Amino acid sequence: MKLFYLGPEGSFTFQAARIAGTKCFTNNEIEYVACASEREIFNNVEQGRGDGIIAWENNVEGYVATNLDRLMNSHNVAGTQRISLNIQFDAFVRPDCGEITEVTAHPHGLAQCTQFIEEHNLREVPSSSNSAACKDLKPHQVALAPHKSGELYGLHTWQESVQDYAHAHTDFLLLQSREKALDTNTIRENCGIECETILTVIPLSIGPGVIANLLDVFRDNGLNMTSLISRPIKGVDGTYSFVITIDAAPWESSVQHVFQEIEEHGDWLKIMAVYPQRTTHSLPIKQWNLPHRGINAMLTHMRVSQEHGLSTDCDGESGEEQA
Amino acid sequence: MKLFYLGPEGSFTFQAARIAGTKCFTNNEIEYVACASEREIFNNVEQGRGDGIIAWENNVEGYVATNLDRLMNSHNVAGTQRISLNIQFDAFVRPDCGEITEVTAHPHGLAQCTQFIEEHNLREVPSSSNSAACKDLKPHQVALAPHKSGELYGLHTWQESVQDYAHAHTDFLLLQSREKALDTNTIRENCGIECETILTVIPLSIGPGVIANLLDVFRDNGLNMTSLISRPIKGVDGTYSFVITIDAAPWESSVQHVFQEIEEHGDWLKIMAVYPQRTTHSLPIKQWNLPHRGINAMLTHMRVSQEHGLSTDCDGESGEEQA
Repeated sequence: MKLFYLGPEGSFTFQAARIAGTKCFTNNEIEYVACASEREIFNNVEQGRGDGIIAWENNVEGYVATNLDRLMNSHNVAGTQRISLNIQFDAFVRPDCGEITEVTAHPHGLAQCTQFIEEHNLREVPSSSNSAACKDLKPHQVALAPHKSGELYGLHTWQESVQDYAHAHTDFLLLQSREKALDTNTIRENCGIECETILTVIPLSIGPGVIANLLDVFRDNGLNMTSLISRPIKGVDGTYSFVITIDAAPWESSVQHVFQEIEEHGDWLKIMAVYPQRTTHSLPIKQWNLPHRGINAMLTHMRVSQEHGLSTDCDGESGEEQA
Repeated sequence: MKLFYLGPEGSFTFQAARIAGTKCFTNNEIEYVACASEREIFNNVEQGRGDGIIAWENNVEGYVATNLDRLMNSHNVAGTQRISLNIQFDAFVRPDCGEITEVTAHPHGLAQCTQFIEEHNLREVPSSSNSAACKDLKPHQVALAPHKSGELYGLHTWQESVQDYAHAHTDFLLLQSREKALDTNTIRENCGIECETILTVIPLSIGPGVIANLLDVFRDNGLNMTSLISRPIKGVDGTYSFVITIDAAPWESSVQHVFQEIEEHGDWLKIMAVYPQRTTHSLPIKQWNLPHRGINAMLTHMRVSQEHGLSTDCDGESGEEQA
């Protein structure tokens, strides 16, 4: 059994592939195959050459948009497992490094270590992957990557744990052919395994309330939507597809009911992934990292009393309403 | 007056800056200042050193997520103009080029020319900007960039117009201090200029129907939402902010009513941009580029009759529902 991942070895995706390999396959006869791009991974799964693993969503940087689009547009690929990986970035330099003026990593990596980059006033040089950044590192550069990548390429650790958020993690999806996914889901349904579903809906009408009406269908059937994101329909102005994650399996009657209503309404629908339910822990609102300023009655009071320095930020609400 | 843009000269952002300069400022005393990163642009506007211009949304690749986050989290920055630019990528090589094995551009550029990249079987090398890709081009690489960039760096045109979609364009936002934005909007209100608004809402509760209820408020006040996208609240699992574009100005009574309801409900709200209404043209649905497969009663029929080759893709709806 081949499992395709975004190489080179040592990447976060490789770590996720190892977890998926251990978790989802009973025998140990898995061949981990590094691919040069995520497009290659999709092509391999599409052609039935094996399974794949792709980065799906990071709780700091959001969805990996290109992978959303690829899964949405695939013919024969579906997600069947969701694997969560804690993300720690270390900063690596070459043993023969000089003065450090540049920082290199995958664009998602750069976006997750902004404080470190600003502190050292480094110029950003995007790389195709964090491991590739380590592999091709120049003497005046620092690479941001997982611990194993730096080790693998004989680099020195300059600083540990330089990511902006301590609880950063990335979720990956295991991709399989739709036939395999169908078999897996039949077993899940028969064994009563609780699942979540990722689906894409494209409302085929325009005007006020289109999305509100669509989401009402989910709410009125008692479904808990845990995520909603839009993607443009490529090259067509003002049109969007909506990728929706729900806390229920497609075979449950409430979900079947929603599908029927969407289909009857003439909208476009595709199921992208089904995987066993995650356990989620909600943080209390005062621990959310809300953006600066903005209007909020409850929070304005809370913030002003908590942090004196921010008090002017929370005034001027009338200004906010007009600006 | 300084206008900060993502350099180097020749970039799409520079073209957008020139349009903004001509359109929005009556005198010609504009100094265009190239910045090395979009973070630098935000910092300059935040510190009151001038205005800025940033890429906001592309109709193929979607929103520029990092800029969404920066504007959301800024203290003293607001969008006041939206500038749309047709995007044409040409492929450039060095005069002394050898065999071409790699392609380089900003990650958004790479994502917009996938057919060209696949056709030539090129390895992707992301760059900090399309112009930087031209500037630092190696003999075995092809750069994807606007026509002017290639010209500027003395490159040869390998192939013209290599983007996947003929009607690709990117919208940019002109950024100003919130004080300036307030003045501009007071004039707009007094002169009766019709505007659109981009705002961010964070529902401060969790559970079924939270987003449906929020969007119902917009619909029930007759507001047309032209775009909706979610971003994660950084580092906090399962929490999202929603960036909403509406076809109305914040001073209109229906919008004021929505703001009041959101505030009364205890949710977080921030206005990010106000700009004059765009003229939009809706394409008929059969010209939308819908993804492969998926369920749709109307379209299934349409597609099958239009394209015989696709008929098997549109069958097997029961398979889709389960997989």
